[in-house]
Amino acid sequence: MLKMKFTGITCLLAFIVINAATLAVTAADESQRQIGYGRGGRMQGGSVSERSKEPIQPIPMSFDWNSAKIELGKKLFFEPRLSKSGWITCNSCHNLSTGGADNLPTSIGHKWMLGPINSPTVLNAKFNLAQFWDGRAKDLKEQAKGPIANPMEMASNHELAVNVLQSIPAYMQWFKEVYGEGNITIDNVADAIAAFEETLTTPNSRFDAWLNGYDDKISEPEKQGYDLFKDKGCIICHNGFGIGGNSFQKFGVAKPYEKDTQTLGRYNVTKDEKDKYVFKVPLLRNIELTAPYFHDASTWSLREAVNTMSEYQLGVILPDAEKDKIVAFLKTLTGDQPSIIFPTLPPSNENTPKPNRN
Amino acid sequence: MLKMKFTGITCLLAFIVINAATLAVTAADESQRQIGYGRGGRMQGGSVSERSKEPIQPIPMSFDWNSAKIELGKKLFFEPRLSKSGWITCNSCHNLSTGGADNLPTSIGHKWMLGPINSPTVLNAKFNLAQFWDGRAKDLKEQAKGPIANPMEMASNHELAVNVLQSIPAYMQWFKEVYGEGNITIDNVADAIAAFEETLTTPNSRFDAWLNGYDDKISEPEKQGYDLFKDKGCIICHNGFGIGGNSFQKFGVAKPYEKDTQTLGRYNVTKDEKDKYVFKVPLLRNIELTAPYFHDASTWSLREAVNTMSEYQLGVILPDAEKDKIVAFLKTLTGDQPSIIFPTLPPSNENTPKPNRN
Repeated sequence: MLKMKFTGITCLLAFIVINAATLAVTAADESQRQIGYGRGGRMQGGSVSERSKEPIQPIPMSFDWNSAKIELGKKLFFEPRLSKSGWITCNSCHNLSTGGADNLPTSIGHKWMLGPINSPTVLNAKFNLAQFWDGRAKDLKEQAKGPIANPMEMASNHELAVNVLQSIPAYMQWFKEVYGEGNITIDNVADAIAAFEETLTTPNSRFDAWLNGYDDKISEPEKQGYDLFKDKGCIICHNGFGIGGNSFQKFGVAKPYEKDTQTLGRYNVTKDEKDKYVFKVPLLRNIELTAPYFHDASTWSLREAVNTMSEYQLGVILPDAEKDKIVAFLKTLTGDQPSIIFPTLPPSNENTPKPNRN
Repeated sequence: MLKMKFTGITCLLAFIVINAATLAVTAADESQRQIGYGRGGRMQGGSVSERSKEPIQPIPMSFDWNSAKIELGKKLFFEPRLSKSGWITCNSCHNLSTGGADNLPTSIGHKWMLGPINSPTVLNAKFNLAQFWDGRAKDLKEQAKGPIANPMEMASNHELAVNVLQSIPAYMQWFKEVYGEGNITIDNVADAIAAFEETLTTPNSRFDAWLNGYDDKISEPEKQGYDLFKDKGCIICHNGFGIGGNSFQKFGVAKPYEKDTQTLGRYNVTKDEKDKYVFKVPLLRNIELTAPYFHDASTWSLREAVNTMSEYQLGVILPDAEKDKIVAFLKTLTGDQPSIIFPTLPPSNENTPKPNRN
């Protein structure tokens, strides 16, 4: 109840920004979030404690953030000079304007090379038990190092990326402030990017509001969709803060998934036969924003995705009316998108390695 | 003096942001600007009226803005679905994180095609007498239509771009609010982008502060650099609000520019022999941020650029010490970069034409 009251009060308050440039993510983020879900809603309360037992948890409203590290990480997330071409950024494939993904079947990388698998969203990625579809990175920090040096993605290498940053006095200063003198290392680059990515949660979805006791935030068909989502068994894999992301599961439990037999998933990491076609369960938060769906991007339709899941994972054919209700429920999972002040990056100079488009 | 006092006062005020999401550019922009150049400076005044006769004018602090149109234009500026691939945006080549340019010799476009000429910055582009190096677009609105349909850039076409936007209910609503019912047209797309670009000025450079009477905002060598800039004749072409952008001039006045004889410049528009190798004079605002320099990106060094200009345009070889002072002056022209809240874009749906990476 305390959290509910807090939200109710802050939604009436203006948020004072003393210095937009310095507070950056933090300020804008928080102001948008704090005025978020009280808006237009009536607090009907009474069912929070009951709903605290639901298998899906609302995204917390605040985290313990190191703002200097986050600000640095934000700059690096949008830093094209971490790529060989000087053109591709983390945001190129995990676009914060479009649900933290690129809405492409697979990503475009250096020299227009096309990646092998659909790029997962960076939003709420902190709730994943591991990163990448096959879970080969244990956390966001380890993940962040991958694309920089992947020849099909940013196509740089860790030494070059560090050299670029070391040539720029402003980065020298910012890294010193966060990590101490002389500590521009690829580990710290990844650590700062991960710290920024930790902030990229999307609280205040209508469904979270409902979990928090705002009864009228979801409609009756949406509520029925949630009941179906539980009754049919979707909830077995899609639960928790991220509504997914917390287990590995085989794609093709009820029957073999014949549309993509090339992508081996978790097997690539473990070399265990049992892990063939096993993938990290994707998050369903903001699912309306992140088409196309599945690791192989086999559909752009959320309804078709529900159909595929029920057929291959649950072994049932759902009536259209039930699929529609589940889709309606899924669309209640879109939360407040991060409000990011686009960073200003410091200029290169004569010591900075030049971009290479080849 | 009124403007100076206003700035002095507002730099002490916190700026109240009621709704970060709605105020978007306007709020963040203004808060950063208003707390801008009073910060850390002492007002010594007395020389403003004298400096009002200088051939360079400070960038005005405020404009008459239509905030709904600007917000729409900002979304379109960052809208990847205006490109065929669903990946390239206006910001890809005119990156607001890096001086409004891409810091590449020539831009990367669809399928990694490399453009024929260096991308000019979008910052302060409103001060240009025409757009593109050859001035083939009369204004920002006309310019904005070009890259969307250029097969080497965004590679879409105007009909497809409009169809994409018309498929998305949120865009239907936003265009209706700004242009009236049923008015998603390529003209209005360009008009909104241009309205956003009009806001992308960079006031509060140290040099503008000096013009406004803050004597200690530039150092003695920087001041000497400005005096040289005038005495040697740079000022003949680089003057006004943009310190350039207000005339077409031949590249190679004092002697033929032999490094690039392929790019014909203004001749492409007029077919007049006299216009061969004639280009729009580039803006020098934020010049430190926008390497490499010249239409052919022939140098990454500002000092080398000064050398080229003095040799080919003025017919003089400047001593190194003078070049250094001019470079020092040029670095005082970096203003407050636009503070942009990165937009959240609405999702595609089953009616939205799919991206095509081929």
